[in-house]
Amino acid sequence: MQRTVEKIKHSDLKFGKKILLNTLLSCSIVIISSCATSKTNQSGNIILKEQGAFSAGGTIIKSEGTFDPLKPWNEQQGGQTRHGDHADVFYQIPVNKKHNSMVFLHGYGQSRRSWQTTADGREGFSDIFLKSGYGVYLVDQPGRGDAGQTTKPVQISASPDDQTWYTQFRIGLYPKFNEGVQFPKGEKYLDSFFRMMTPNTGNADEETIVNALSAVFDKSGDGILFTHSAGGAPGWKTAIKNDRVKAIVAIEPGGFTFPEGEVPQGNRGGKGVPLNEFLKLTEIPIVVYYGDYIPAEETNAASLNFWRNVLATAKQWAKIVNAHGGNATIVHLPEMGIKGNTHFIMSDLNNRQIANLIAKWLKEKGLDN
Amino acid sequence: MQRTVEKIKHSDLKFGKKILLNTLLSCSIVIISSCATSKTNQSGNIILKEQGAFSAGGTIIKSEGTFDPLKPWNEQQGGQTRHGDHADVFYQIPVNKKHNSMVFLHGYGQSRRSWQTTADGREGFSDIFLKSGYGVYLVDQPGRGDAGQTTKPVQISASPDDQTWYTQFRIGLYPKFNEGVQFPKGEKYLDSFFRMMTPNTGNADEETIVNALSAVFDKSGDGILFTHSAGGAPGWKTAIKNDRVKAIVAIEPGGFTFPEGEVPQGNRGGKGVPLNEFLKLTEIPIVVYYGDYIPAEETNAASLNFWRNVLATAKQWAKIVNAHGGNATIVHLPEMGIKGNTHFIMSDLNNRQIANLIAKWLKEKGLDN
Repeated sequence: MQRTVEKIKHSDLKFGKKILLNTLLSCSIVIISSCATSKTNQSGNIILKEQGAFSAGGTIIKSEGTFDPLKPWNEQQGGQTRHGDHADVFYQIPVNKKHNSMVFLHGYGQSRRSWQTTADGREGFSDIFLKSGYGVYLVDQPGRGDAGQTTKPVQISASPDDQTWYTQFRIGLYPKFNEGVQFPKGEKYLDSFFRMMTPNTGNADEETIVNALSAVFDKSGDGILFTHSAGGAPGWKTAIKNDRVKAIVAIEPGGFTFPEGEVPQGNRGGKGVPLNEFLKLTEIPIVVYYGDYIPAEETNAASLNFWRNVLATAKQWAKIVNAHGGNATIVHLPEMGIKGNTHFIMSDLNNRQIANLIAKWLKEKGLDN
Repeated sequence: MQRTVEKIKHSDLKFGKKILLNTLLSCSIVIISSCATSKTNQSGNIILKEQGAFSAGGTIIKSEGTFDPLKPWNEQQGGQTRHGDHADVFYQIPVNKKHNSMVFLHGYGQSRRSWQTTADGREGFSDIFLKSGYGVYLVDQPGRGDAGQTTKPVQISASPDDQTWYTQFRIGLYPKFNEGVQFPKGEKYLDSFFRMMTPNTGNADEETIVNALSAVFDKSGDGILFTHSAGGAPGWKTAIKNDRVKAIVAIEPGGFTFPEGEVPQGNRGGKGVPLNEFLKLTEIPIVVYYGDYIPAEETNAASLNFWRNVLATAKQWAKIVNAHGGNATIVHLPEMGIKGNTHFIMSDLNNRQIANLIAKWLKEKGLDN
């Protein structure tokens, strides 16, 4: 494969103005929609009691030898540590916050940006739920984004792969858009979407991610865990590990935690766990959302078959959770008449409609207090 | 060098509570200090009109060939793009915002976390200035943190080097703390400090960083550029490139932009620029801060000699700027009786005192409106 390199200047003042306009427009919508869920925010403003950042979890490696502080750049000397493999967390606590916090974990190749904004600069789930009174904790998992410091070296590739993700994320079969897709059309929105990707700076294993995410809940207190895509698998394990996870809202998880002996072929959530651990998942309400364009039958498009298998596994998993006394719901949005959603349900054009569905579900489960 | 690997669980509930306590304590301080600078925030709360995230600047590479959307994971196929080398920006706009925004660029091995918080969880500069009415734009530069997507492959090392940075950043000659150092003592604070480090995910050149930072100002509008350490050098070039940079507050910059023919030996800011470009730096007020423990004479500690040379270059640079009609001030804090500052002046224990100095300077220059 030959590669040609083009530098394109990426600054578009009109786009900046459009974002501002969209934000102003969405503010007036907020006034209406937030009235239903919270009394703390009638103005459309965000009123924070505090915000901040911290690291959670992580490991430390040490080199043998003695450190000479007079020659700190001497490459031969050891006696040093490296702190890495933690999560990086940005949190915001509104005034009159609800008891339950929300903790947000991104998917593969993504960072907390997944939850903060959208390709066209509208509000993401974190702002929407912050405005309705939840404390929000936005995670970059170990070896991703601002949690970049790891304890294992890694080679980062820079192969062009935007079109692979466009297709895998069900925006369309590139260069086509799926018919009726809830993704803003225009080169500048795709540009913004592609730039949300960010690579692994170390290959953190699932245990490392679970430990870090569990440490976030030690700091956030009782909370609702939101996961996206590849964040789903460590999400289930975090709920098993830490009682402070009071519910899970999973957006298109790719893999599931089954009890040992009941793991179906092709599940991407790893091998099963002992039944007593699995049963922890039956003690909390769980809702799982999948979007549109997932075919009922096998097709000639590899990405669509992938999601067809995942959705089938999800339904199988929910049956097992519920057979063990649990409370898991799989929502396949087109089946309830909500069409056009990609893999990024939380930032699609109808993300406010989806947020309202989730708010309703949280209220039904008594979690919105 | 042999390496031993130790996994240490990093979750300390007491630490979480201490952060909360510190935040509550600092809230009451805020009420007093913010009265002097703003009428918008008498409660200690942060009141935001909006917040969000966007990418700025960046490049696009393309592979030759044709993309087959039916087989998106086929590694042989080309016809793809990769969007990278942009800055990632998180911004917050308070109600009744001042005309000038603030744009914050981190230093080497750091991310926007440098400005958001401190090793012991107190408020960073971004919250302090947000509360006094500035819109704040927190940048992860191309190939760092959430702006991780780049267009060139890179190898990330994971060599233990915490002690090198501890020493280089003038916390002390490891394991000693400098006498009277304004750094919170305790293993948990060092742990937090070390975990703020995050590696390059690509080696963005200065032009790429300057282009991205200039694109941030296209979106922020008129603003004050804050730089730290290695962020200093691209900071000067950004002010030359973009008229929206109305002032620079540089915290311990490592290199300077001189006019061609006047570059002193050992300057880390690269070769000079044509005089007409340099003169742009004479059109805006500039203040540069250096902390403590920078020796007057050469010592046996390599890190201290490094900073001694940098401070000497800074003073020489300010003379040249001012000789050309500029308005640059070098503040060596110990010379005005402020002792104990490390390289991280903006997050040291006395960061509120430093923020007050900066607020006073901005007022004097007519920039706080």
